[in-house]
Amino acid sequence: MNNYPPTPNTTPSRYAKQRMHYDEATIHAILDEALFCTVSYAVDNVPFSIPTAFVRKGHTLYIHGSVGSHFLREIEKGIPVCISVMLTDALVVAKSAFHHSVNYRSVIIFSKAEKIDDYEQKALFFKELTDKIVPGSWDYLRPMQPKEVQKTMLLAFDIHESSAKMRTGMPIDDEEDQALPIWSGLIPLSNARLAPIPDDLSREIPLPGHLVR
Amino acid sequence: MNNYPPTPNTTPSRYAKQRMHYDEATIHAILDEALFCTVSYAVDNVPFSIPTAFVRKGHTLYIHGSVGSHFLREIEKGIPVCISVMLTDALVVAKSAFHHSVNYRSVIIFSKAEKIDDYEQKALFFKELTDKIVPGSWDYLRPMQPKEVQKTMLLAFDIHESSAKMRTGMPIDDEEDQALPIWSGLIPLSNARLAPIPDDLSREIPLPGHLVR
Repeated sequence: MNNYPPTPNTTPSRYAKQRMHYDEATIHAILDEALFCTVSYAVDNVPFSIPTAFVRKGHTLYIHGSVGSHFLREIEKGIPVCISVMLTDALVVAKSAFHHSVNYRSVIIFSKAEKIDDYEQKALFFKELTDKIVPGSWDYLRPMQPKEVQKTMLLAFDIHESSAKMRTGMPIDDEEDQALPIWSGLIPLSNARLAPIPDDLSREIPLPGHLVR
Repeated sequence: MNNYPPTPNTTPSRYAKQRMHYDEATIHAILDEALFCTVSYAVDNVPFSIPTAFVRKGHTLYIHGSVGSHFLREIEKGIPVCISVMLTDALVVAKSAFHHSVNYRSVIIFSKAEKIDDYEQKALFFKELTDKIVPGSWDYLRPMQPKEVQKTMLLAFDIHESSAKMRTGMPIDDEEDQALPIWSGLIPLSNARLAPIPDDLSREIPLPGHLVR
């Protein structure tokens, strides 16, 4: 099992150590399931955060946007960036409010952007992002045009300084509360995709196989 | 309709102006529906981001955590903080990859923490957080103990410097693509709560009315 090396930024100072994971398999699985991340950077110590879609490939995370994006133009300078991802699996309902919690799987990455200008790499990113967001759809869509690739900025982030944090399992109540006749357990949170809704142009068009569940 | 005043931090530099909203009703509705936010701050321009639960009340957003939390102890100093929230409503599937998008409702807030030490205010926060996460549950639970309130830190953030950004509606394809026999529309994303799962202590305890759907 390969591990990303813990650093001061990715090491908790307190009791949460049992929730921390540094192995690639855990970190990559969370990154590959999540569609969106929050990218943060700071200018004169004032932080800015932007939610955006992303793709992981190997030890690299990619985001994109318009070449005119203020946000991308700030971080393409190579300033420090923090990328966070959270999947929420369940509300943890204990017998006391104090022991309520959340089952989640999160990843945090400390990195700096590297701008990718290579046309083939950019085109490949779009295929991978599209097939991540809507699996199997790339070959079905109208092909990407060179001008569309050109007006998009692609930024890559090495993910070696990263960690995962998660909580799983049932609530943990105080021993003296465990016999109380108060219901405790989990309320799972759905992250499901619901039935596709066609737009006006598509009412007569059969739903493609990759969208049929 | 009350508006929060746009500032340079909350004003987009580009085309996205039609997606921006500054009215309290829109911003508060997103904050009240979302359970989690991402709180970011910077030390020596290195950003850190933490996902956490929150409650809004009036023009104030509250987060909490252990009094020993490194993260809370950094931001309780009153350094600049950025709080972001995103609800994802649907994947927007266009006829070309380029025009794929996401229907979302997001809020960004620029603020600084104010620590709340007043016992009554802290106790009220716990009631409001608990009833936000699991509506109607507060009065059913084992009452909060003073020592539980005391070992929790409560931070308040004024939300006057904030904006909402959202996308709604169907994909917008290029005119020359609109007659293509390619399916386009929305894939709604569920944020539903699923049926509660009791823990081993609760198998014989009736599900309380506030958890029955």
